[in-house]
Amino acid sequence: MTVTPAAASSTRTFTRMRLFTPGPVEIPARVLRALSQIPPHHRTEVFRATFQRVTNAMRELHRTEGEVFLLAASGTGAMEAAVTNLMSPGEKALAVVGGKFGERWKKLLEAYGVPHDAVDAEWGKAVDPALVEAALARDPSITTVFATHSETSTGAIHDVQAFAKITRAHGKRLVIDAITSLGVHPIPQDEWGIDVIVCGSQKGLMAPPGVASVSLAPWAAAAIERGLPRFYFDLRKARKSAPLGESAFTPAVSLVLALEEALTMIHEEGLDAAHARHRRLAHAMRAGGKAAGYSLFSSSPSHAVTAFVPPAGIDGGTVVKRLRDVHGMVVAGGQDHLKGKIFRVGHMGAYDLSDIVAMVSALEEIASVNGRPSAGAVDVARAAWDAA
Amino acid sequence: MTVTPAAASSTRTFTRMRLFTPGPVEIPARVLRALSQIPPHHRTEVFRATFQRVTNAMRELHRTEGEVFLLAASGTGAMEAAVTNLMSPGEKALAVVGGKFGERWKKLLEAYGVPHDAVDAEWGKAVDPALVEAALARDPSITTVFATHSETSTGAIHDVQAFAKITRAHGKRLVIDAITSLGVHPIPQDEWGIDVIVCGSQKGLMAPPGVASVSLAPWAAAAIERGLPRFYFDLRKARKSAPLGESAFTPAVSLVLALEEALTMIHEEGLDAAHARHRRLAHAMRAGGKAAGYSLFSSSPSHAVTAFVPPAGIDGGTVVKRLRDVHGMVVAGGQDHLKGKIFRVGHMGAYDLSDIVAMVSALEEIASVNGRPSAGAVDVARAAWDAA
Repeated sequence: MTVTPAAASSTRTFTRMRLFTPGPVEIPARVLRALSQIPPHHRTEVFRATFQRVTNAMRELHRTEGEVFLLAASGTGAMEAAVTNLMSPGEKALAVVGGKFGERWKKLLEAYGVPHDAVDAEWGKAVDPALVEAALARDPSITTVFATHSETSTGAIHDVQAFAKITRAHGKRLVIDAITSLGVHPIPQDEWGIDVIVCGSQKGLMAPPGVASVSLAPWAAAAIERGLPRFYFDLRKARKSAPLGESAFTPAVSLVLALEEALTMIHEEGLDAAHARHRRLAHAMRAGGKAAGYSLFSSSPSHAVTAFVPPAGIDGGTVVKRLRDVHGMVVAGGQDHLKGKIFRVGHMGAYDLSDIVAMVSALEEIASVNGRPSAGAVDVARAAWDAA
Repeated sequence: MTVTPAAASSTRTFTRMRLFTPGPVEIPARVLRALSQIPPHHRTEVFRATFQRVTNAMRELHRTEGEVFLLAASGTGAMEAAVTNLMSPGEKALAVVGGKFGERWKKLLEAYGVPHDAVDAEWGKAVDPALVEAALARDPSITTVFATHSETSTGAIHDVQAFAKITRAHGKRLVIDAITSLGVHPIPQDEWGIDVIVCGSQKGLMAPPGVASVSLAPWAAAAIERGLPRFYFDLRKARKSAPLGESAFTPAVSLVLALEEALTMIHEEGLDAAHARHRRLAHAMRAGGKAAGYSLFSSSPSHAVTAFVPPAGIDGGTVVKRLRDVHGMVVAGGQDHLKGKIFRVGHMGAYDLSDIVAMVSALEEIASVNGRPSAGAVDVARAAWDAA
């Protein structure tokens, strides 16, 4: 069960694998240590207090005076909870689709038979808020808009503040998947007017996967009272248990302990400082990658994940494989029709400039051995960090 | 975040809390160590291999040649998956209710609008298989029977082998909640003819909560093809990913690593030996508790959980509190109408005779300080272990 590279090689340069995946991400040692402590039973005062601290720390991260519900599930479970708790029979939704995770909203709505329209953008581009405006103007029967903040499949960030202005003006509900953006990009829920935000533990929050959250703005409290058939993800049950420091069903106790430690780390750094650090990481990654001959896939790049197109003549899969086998770095390839065309570098969580420097240098080496040499990309990355 | 007793006391006798809860249970140090290892990304060969090993180890535990699907959820999520994947619109179910977890089947069926009958037993008793036979004879439109193996709320065990004989004879499907029984009581799925078994990681499997499983017998493979609206728990998606060593959505990676270590421990002990040990633990616990003046609540006691009625004049809550504050032992009180009347001692997982001896001695002390002295209960427990 030790973590070994998938393929050993005489050219390998590393002693351990480093995750630059778009989630789950590297888990800080402090969080691993919290994970391995002897877990208290969940129906004890000590755990109830922990559960309440974690809930409150999540409210703080969301900048909301509303409720945050923690679920034992991965992020898609929280997305499902948003659909089944908010949409009642006869209601119509709008899905904002700019990639695989926007499509997931659409697939969830389809699975539950919720009538819906969709607005799209070419993958890599952000969906224009004007399309949301037009869709709501066209069909006033739409009650709820489902969108993605940072679209992990393309590395694009959406202007969810603009989405919220539109939904507020139309008196509609807005649900945002912030699974890869929370802790990375500012998304002050109450200030921006976002009714519901869903998140997962394994991205910007630096904890292992298995805890998901649904954050409900104070003005949206009644929105979960009707809904579709549901049980495990019934937020009315979660609401009933929350004041006791409990969840409706057995929580993922060890993961909640780990999440608490991760949230403490974010609190110690300061949320604004964490946002600023991610901005600098992203700028350094983009500038360094470009200087090494790679181009940005997204015209609206996220600070959580950078999607690169390799230099001409180099396949995305070649980069992914050599990063893994020679450099010990795990990144993600493109999904669906982007397979082989792009690769995606995650830098959300406890990453710093040295991590980016290492990645940029590896990318430069890979371009070079594939006939596309460059020089100085690391210095460019460092300068971009300084300037950002 | 250290685990401290809920209330310190000058009479306290302990340095650490011990869980005798009906799940989650004490996590062995080996499992905690596995939990804290650096987790690989889930889309890597190393984790795919782990996921397949865990799946196969679960198939081995279930004694099935069918499929086991691992879900990032607690046990109720797997129960929901059974309902929404098996029941199609127009189908009728039968719920076998002998306590809170039997009622959970009923509540799930209600939440999803599935027409159903129910057969009941007074809490503490097992539901008579003849009632299942009569219900199926009365209404041939019933397609599926949902029942509980070890009913955690009452400490009763059901004769699910008898249930399976009846459902097989009637050509109906049988779904068993084995959340507290797997690894404790034999439940050979294929031999007994059980279509579906659901389980959770945090009971007999000795791992932290957050992984649930659905085991589908080989002859029942087609049973999940229709079903109700579902997405996160859609077993058709799980089936599609399983041959790749993947789950449909991000798995609870760290918990899967912990579960692998726990399953390795069960494999090392041997499943038959683990069953025998739990039988002896249960016999020792029952005999010792009775010798200390407590009576068994269930007429059909499970080997996973023993529910006791305290000696006359002593409230169940008093026992729970003194076990916690003086002895450092966490047990569960009664639920719903049994609150204050019973308490429940869990002994599933890595428990041994010394644990039972300590519990029996503590129960004797509590009876004694509450005016019901006894002597020799520990010796009785030890003798029952030897005789079982």
